Amino acid sequence: MKDQFAYNSNTFCAISTPRGSGAIAVIRLNGPEVFSVVNKIFTPYSDTGKKVFEHKKAIYGKITEDEKILDEVMLLPFKSPNSYTGDDMAEIYCHGSVFIQQKILQLLIDNGVRTAGPGEFTMRAFQNGKMDLAQAEGVADLVASSSAASHKLAMQQMRGGFSSEIRNLREKLLHFISLIELELDFSEEDVEFADRTQLQDLLKEINLLIEKLLNSFELGNALKNGFPIAIAGNTNVGKSTLLNHLLNEEKAIVTDIAGTTRDVIEDVVNIKGIEFRFIDTAGIRDTGDKIETIGIERTFDQIDRAKIVILLVDANQDQNYVTDTIRKVEKRTEGTDKKLMVLLNKVDLVETEDQLNKMDKAIKEVIASDDEFMRISAKTGKNIDQLINALLEAASYEQVGENDILVTNARHYEALKRAHDSLQRAREGLKTGLATDLLAMDVRDVLHYLGEITGQISTDEILGNIFENFCIGK
Amino acid sequence: MKDQFAYNSNTFCAISTPRGSGAIAVIRLNGPEVFSVVNKIFTPYSDTGKKVFEHKKAIYGKITEDEKILDEVMLLPFKSPNSYTGDDMAEIYCHGSVFIQQKILQLLIDNGVRTAGPGEFTMRAFQNGKMDLAQAEGVADLVASSSAASHKLAMQQMRGGFSSEIRNLREKLLHFISLIELELDFSEEDVEFADRTQLQDLLKEINLLIEKLLNSFELGNALKNGFPIAIAGNTNVGKSTLLNHLLNEEKAIVTDIAGTTRDVIEDVVNIKGIEFRFIDTAGIRDTGDKIETIGIERTFDQIDRAKIVILLVDANQDQNYVTDTIRKVEKRTEGTDKKLMVLLNKVDLVETEDQLNKMDKAIKEVIASDDEFMRISAKTGKNIDQLINALLEAASYEQVGENDILVTNARHYEALKRAHDSLQRAREGLKTGLATDLLAMDVRDVLHYLGEITGQISTDEILGNIFENFCIGK
Repeated sequence: MKDQFAYNSNTFCAISTPRGSGAIAVIRLNGPEVFSVVNKIFTPYSDTGKKVFEHKKAIYGKITEDEKILDEVMLLPFKSPNSYTGDDMAEIYCHGSVFIQQKILQLLIDNGVRTAGPGEFTMRAFQNGKMDLAQAEGVADLVASSSAASHKLAMQQMRGGFSSEIRNLREKLLHFISLIELELDFSEEDVEFADRTQLQDLLKEINLLIEKLLNSFELGNALKNGFPIAIAGNTNVGKSTLLNHLLNEEKAIVTDIAGTTRDVIEDVVNIKGIEFRFIDTAGIRDTGDKIETIGIERTFDQIDRAKIVILLVDANQDQNYVTDTIRKVEKRTEGTDKKLMVLLNKVDLVETEDQLNKMDKAIKEVIASDDEFMRISAKTGKNIDQLINALLEAASYEQVGENDILVTNARHYEALKRAHDSLQRAREGLKTGLATDLLAMDVRDVLHYLGEITGQISTDEILGNIFENFCIGK
Repeated sequence: MKDQFAYNSNTFCAISTPRGSGAIAVIRLNGPEVFSVVNKIFTPYSDTGKKVFEHKKAIYGKITEDEKILDEVMLLPFKSPNSYTGDDMAEIYCHGSVFIQQKILQLLIDNGVRTAGPGEFTMRAFQNGKMDLAQAEGVADLVASSSAASHKLAMQQMRGGFSSEIRNLREKLLHFISLIELELDFSEEDVEFADRTQLQDLLKEINLLIEKLLNSFELGNALKNGFPIAIAGNTNVGKSTLLNHLLNEEKAIVTDIAGTTRDVIEDVVNIKGIEFRFIDTAGIRDTGDKIETIGIERTFDQIDRAKIVILLVDANQDQNYVTDTIRKVEKRTEGTDKKLMVLLNKVDLVETEDQLNKMDKAIKEVIASDDEFMRISAKTGKNIDQLINALLEAASYEQVGENDILVTNARHYEALKRAHDSLQRAREGLKTGLATDLLAMDVRDVLHYLGEITGQISTDEILGNIFENFCIGK
C-alpha cells in the first residue's frame, strides 16, 4: 500500500465546493494517475459500459466500493494539456451529502490519491505555464471577491492585467543585459555592445510603468479591501445613527431570492459596488463643552488609518466648541491625502435658519478649501444622498476607466518598489558612467524583481506564501 | 419585462452547491428557455466562437453582463429528454465566491429565469416520469444521509427499492378492479368476470408484501434516523463517562484529511456505520440510598422513547438499592420490544471478587432472561468492546441483508398501513360475499394508497409536503 502511495503521489484530489451539505458537490482530481484511478472506482451507465474518457465529455455512472454503490455521479474528464492545470484532470459531480463527499474522498485516498494542498490546482496551472503568478493570484482574489470593485480588479488581474506589459519590457531589458554581459566578457577591450542611449530610454519607459503601477496601489488596495473611513466626533453627536443610515443604503447584491444569504461583516458598507470599511473611533468623550484630550488622541489614531475622515459635529452645540474640535482634527489631516468631510448634524433640531447660517460661517472659516462641508440630519436622512455621492467621489471609483490597471496586491507593490529602487540606481549609474559590472548588477536586480511579479523568477518560499492563502480545491 | 417573466416562468435556476464560498460553485438551470438564456449571457472561448450546445459536452467560456465579464466558467448542457429532469438543462461551474454566485443568479433572473423551489429539479424528474415518488424521496434521503446505514437505505430507495414490486402488484390489482367494475355495469345480469379465487390469492400476495414492509419500518426508521438509546441511572453512576467512552469509539469517516470537517451532533455516536442517538435522561437523583420517585418517573419518559435502554448501576452501592432500581426499570421495559442492558459499573473500585459475585447473583435474579447483563468500567474502558457488540447486535444491522428492502419513510409507512386496513376489509368481504360495489370500493382504496407511495396517485398537497423538505438546487 505504501508503494502505491509513493507511486501516485503526483495525483491529488479535493472537494472544491463550499463546505457542508448541498444538492451537488464537486470533487476534483489531478495528475498522471487520474484515469487509472477513475477506471477502478467508476462504471458508466452507457449501453456499452465501456470506459472511454473523452475530453470534456460528461459521463453518468456509478462509483462503487467493494461492489457496493457509493453514489451515482456525473464524471467530467479533462485531458492533458487542455485542462485548467495542464495535467490530466477529472471532476466528479456527486450528491452533496457530507457523508458521500467524504466517502468518495476516502475511496480516492484508498486508491493512492493524496489530498491537495491549498491552491494546488492553480499552482499546477502556473507550473505548467497555463498562467503567470500574478494571474494565479488573481484567481485567489476572484474567489475571495465580495464587491463589484474587488471582483472587477481580480478579473482584470486573472485575465492578464499588467503582466504582459511587464513581461514585454522585461524581455527587452533581458536583451540589454546579455549585451552588457558580453561587454564584461570582453572587458579588457573596452567595447560597448549595448547602446547606452537606447538602454536609458528603455529604463525610462520601465520607470514610467512602474511608477504608474506604484501610484495605483493605494486606490487598488482600497478598492480591493474596502475604503477605510473614520467617523470622528463626540459620542452623542449621532455617529451610530449615521452608520445605520449608511447601512440601510447598502444595496444588497441579490434581493428577494429565496435561499441566498450574504456574509455580513460588521461596519462594512457596500455602496454601489464599493466597500467602505468603517473604522471604529473611540469617540471624543463628552465632558461638558470641553474637549477631552484623551478622546482626541484616540480619534487621531483612527484618523491615521483612514483614507476618508468624517467629522460629525452637533449643530446645537456651542459654536466655539465645534470650531475648536474641527480645528484639531483639521490639523491632523492637513497636508495628508486624507479627505476630511465635516458634517453638521442634527440640523433638524436647530430652531432658526439664522443660527445655522452663523454656524456654517464659523465652520467654513476653520476648514481647508478642499475639505467637504455639508449640513445633514442622520436622524431624518436629510442630505445623506449628498454624503454618499461625496464618498463615492472620494473613493474616485468613477475615475477608474474600464481598462485601467490597478495594483491591488501587497506582494506586487513590494516587488515594484524594489524594482523601482534598483532602476533609479541603474539610471543614475548610466548618467554618471558607473562601471559596467556595477550597472549590470542593478539591471539584473530590476529583472529579478519584475520577474518575481509574473513568476518568471520564483522560489519555493514565494510560491508557498502565495498558495497557502488559496482555498482547497482551487 | 413582466411579459418576459411570464413567458419564461417554466425556466428556473438555483445554486446547487453548499452555501458559502469555495473554489467552485454549481448553478443549475432547467426549462424550455435554458439555451436561449445561455445564448444571451455565455460566450464560448472556442476557435469559432459558435454557440453550439451539445448534450453533455462541456464548454469553457465567459459570462458577460453589458459586455463586462462576470466570470469565466465551464458550461455543461443537457438536452431533453436525456437530462436528470427530462427537460433541457444546463449547469454552470463558476468561481465559488459568494459575490460571483449571486451576480450570476441575478443575471439569470434579469433574463427572465426564476429561482427554483426546494427539490424542484427532482419534482420535474418525477413529473417527467424519470423516477417515481419513492425514488425522488430517496434522492432527498441520500443528500441528507449521514451514516453508512442511512446512506445504504437511501441509495436502495433511490435506485428503485420496493417501488417496482408495489407497481407490479398494483398493476395486477388494476386488472381485477376493471373486471369488477365491468360486473357492476352488468349488475342486473349477475355475472362474475373477476375470478374470486384468483383475486383472493392476489390480495394475499399483496398483504404479504405490505406486512413485510410494515414490519421493516421500525428498523428502517432507526437505521435512517439513529437508534434511540436511553442511558438510565443515578447521576453519579458514570453516565457521562460511559458516553464519552462511546464517543471516542466513534470512527470518524475521514481522518487526517486537511480541510474536511464533520457536522458534530451532540450525543449521536456513529459506530461502524450505524448511528446511535442518546436520549438525555434526567437521571435518577441521588438522595442517599433511597430511590427518588420523580427521578424514576423522568427516566421512564425517556425509556418510552428509546429502543435500547442502558441501565447503569454502581457496583459499590447498596445491593438492595441496586436491585430495587433494576426492578423498577425492568417493570417498564417488560413486555415491550425494548432491549434492556444492565451494566454494573465501577467494578474496578470493588475490593473483592466475592463482593462482585454476590452483586452479580442478586442482579441476575431480578432481570429478565432476554436482558443483557455485563460488568463494565466506564472509567478504565473495561468491557466497552463487549457493550458495543451488544449494541450493534441489538440494532440488528448485521441481520439486514444486502438486498433487504426496509421502509424508512413515515409517509410510506402511513400509506402502507392504510392500504393494509383496506386490504383486510377487501379480504374479509371476499370471504363473506360482500356486495360487489362495496368490495370494489375497498379494492380501489388499496390501489389508491399503494399508488400514493410510488406517486402514481399524487395530489399537490402530497407533492408539496414531500418537496418542501428538499434542499434548493436538487
